[in-house]
Amino acid sequence: MSPAFVLHNSLIFLGPFTKAFPLWLENQQYSQVFVLCDENTRRHCLPYFLKETGLSEKITLTEIPSGESKKTLATCEKIWQSMLAAKLDRKALVVNLGGGVIGDMGGFCAATWKRGVDFIQVPTTLLSMTDAAIGGKTGIDFQGIKNTIGVFQQPVAVFVDPVFLQTLPERELRSGYAEVIKHALIGDSELARQLSDPDSFGIKLSESSDQNWLDILQKSIAVKVRVVQEDPLEKDLRMLLNFGHSIGHALESWFLETEEPLTHGEAVYIGMVCESFLAGNEGLQKAVLKLGQHVFPHRNMDSEIFPAIWELMQQDKKIRPAQCEWLCRTKCRSL
Amino acid sequence: MSPAFVLHNSLIFLGPFTKAFPLWLENQQYSQVFVLCDENTRRHCLPYFLKETGLSEKITLTEIPSGESKKTLATCEKIWQSMLAAKLDRKALVVNLGGGVIGDMGGFCAATWKRGVDFIQVPTTLLSMTDAAIGGKTGIDFQGIKNTIGVFQQPVAVFVDPVFLQTLPERELRSGYAEVIKHALIGDSELARQLSDPDSFGIKLSESSDQNWLDILQKSIAVKVRVVQEDPLEKDLRMLLNFGHSIGHALESWFLETEEPLTHGEAVYIGMVCESFLAGNEGLQKAVLKLGQHVFPHRNMDSEIFPAIWELMQQDKKIRPAQCEWLCRTKCRSL
Repeated sequence: MSPAFVLHNSLIFLGPFTKAFPLWLENQQYSQVFVLCDENTRRHCLPYFLKETGLSEKITLTEIPSGESKKTLATCEKIWQSMLAAKLDRKALVVNLGGGVIGDMGGFCAATWKRGVDFIQVPTTLLSMTDAAIGGKTGIDFQGIKNTIGVFQQPVAVFVDPVFLQTLPERELRSGYAEVIKHALIGDSELARQLSDPDSFGIKLSESSDQNWLDILQKSIAVKVRVVQEDPLEKDLRMLLNFGHSIGHALESWFLETEEPLTHGEAVYIGMVCESFLAGNEGLQKAVLKLGQHVFPHRNMDSEIFPAIWELMQQDKKIRPAQCEWLCRTKCRSL
Repeated sequence: MSPAFVLHNSLIFLGPFTKAFPLWLENQQYSQVFVLCDENTRRHCLPYFLKETGLSEKITLTEIPSGESKKTLATCEKIWQSMLAAKLDRKALVVNLGGGVIGDMGGFCAATWKRGVDFIQVPTTLLSMTDAAIGGKTGIDFQGIKNTIGVFQQPVAVFVDPVFLQTLPERELRSGYAEVIKHALIGDSELARQLSDPDSFGIKLSESSDQNWLDILQKSIAVKVRVVQEDPLEKDLRMLLNFGHSIGHALESWFLETEEPLTHGEAVYIGMVCESFLAGNEGLQKAVLKLGQHVFPHRNMDSEIFPAIWELMQQDKKIRPAQCEWLCRTKCRSL
């Protein structure tokens, strides 16, 4: 199977592992394979991955605890210690089997191990399939601030197999769906039409077929690839991918300390509604609401609440409202 | 003043700061300048550097304790904390004012801060001027193993001003001189002739003039630049630069635990003698001894002791003799 995309030196494969992985690996000459997972992906994804790729008895496995709160230097130290114990040399391959946290942190540890060993991303969530695993951003949080330490380093390959989406709860799928909406809005009007049509996408994401996901992922990843292709180091254009995130990140931090924390995607979705409102871009705001209507119906997205959220945000020391507002206006003008 | 060399995107300036630095900085648009130093360079080099560059009142200063034993993740954490406290954004410049430890560690912290901010190397030792600051290797030691964590990232510029050599004790100069000898042997036969001529270089390195250093540095750096130019990620050719280091690193670790530790350069010098002996390359061994005769006269470099050193090294668990011997033979064949 040919890669669906080539992004700089990185091959992006879309479809069942069996069709692409074994042949790809056969053409490499890795001294060993080091797999990073968490307790969830070890249980739900690893057996399938090892079986389909034929890697079963040839790997070193390292498990780290799941969750954004573990995306720290302390966890990196544990990963590097495992790499040391495994005598990982420069010709080794690191496989990051998991969502954004595993991909970001495993990518960072690989990119800095002996000044860089090859790594591949095997995303297991919709969020990481369509966004985090694509584009070469690696990193960890530092002192509670997201992605403060990291590097840009493309994985040698990304293997996106939608089979893993079957293992995810509805809410986790919804989280990734916000990024799909974002990609549609910033770069694919046909995908935007498709997402807003209730016939092409049911109310429950978890009832969608692998084939439907393949189609959606193909289009969504294409947008990200195009943007990153042109602006790998986030100098300008790539800022578009940040649509919804200036406010989204702030909301995510804010609600993290409440009894009802938001997922990343929920925060980004509300962020997109707020940012288009702030930028005075009514058309964009309507489009965001339309594309999310099947998926985020339980949140009352009445636009009257946005000034209230905005007010609330200004009381938070983590947010600099002026900078945030400027960013939102700039981004939404470019859309 | 034009740069003496351009290595990928990195400009290498050779000569007094006043001639190059202010004009260079004027053409950049950095939001702030973050200077990293240790207690020695703060005292002996910082006042001169600030005066000559005109930076005096515009910098944030961070001091870390000197020494290879501090080239650790724990020190990086302190540097990143200072960066956070200084609100360092992506448009900032990091200045590494010091020897190899400051350059390697400061380069790593800059290259990983918000996925990379620009940094410059301002080497203050002969070793870092001719070797460590050139070529984009950054990193730290991990669990006592040298340079285990790091990245390849070129500094945007390197400013080599030999004035700092006046602040160094003879033994520290000797340490760097071993790398000059190495560069002469792997890539500049004219420099090799020059170094072996007692008239062009006195017995005491500290009595050498700035002009003589400029000439030697120009030639020595040229060799390193040429090799790195062709092999930035150390795939093959760059291994030549490792001449003397396979055994040298082992010796350095070995003697670190004795009462008379070796400097890096002393260890590399002995390493070059041993490696050429091991490879059965008598001509190369003679050349090493000839080039070092003025500088390393106090070590009895009788070739009869090498089998004894070799014997000694095999007892050390840190060294894998077979691998080391293979490396030495391979390198010396290429010379």
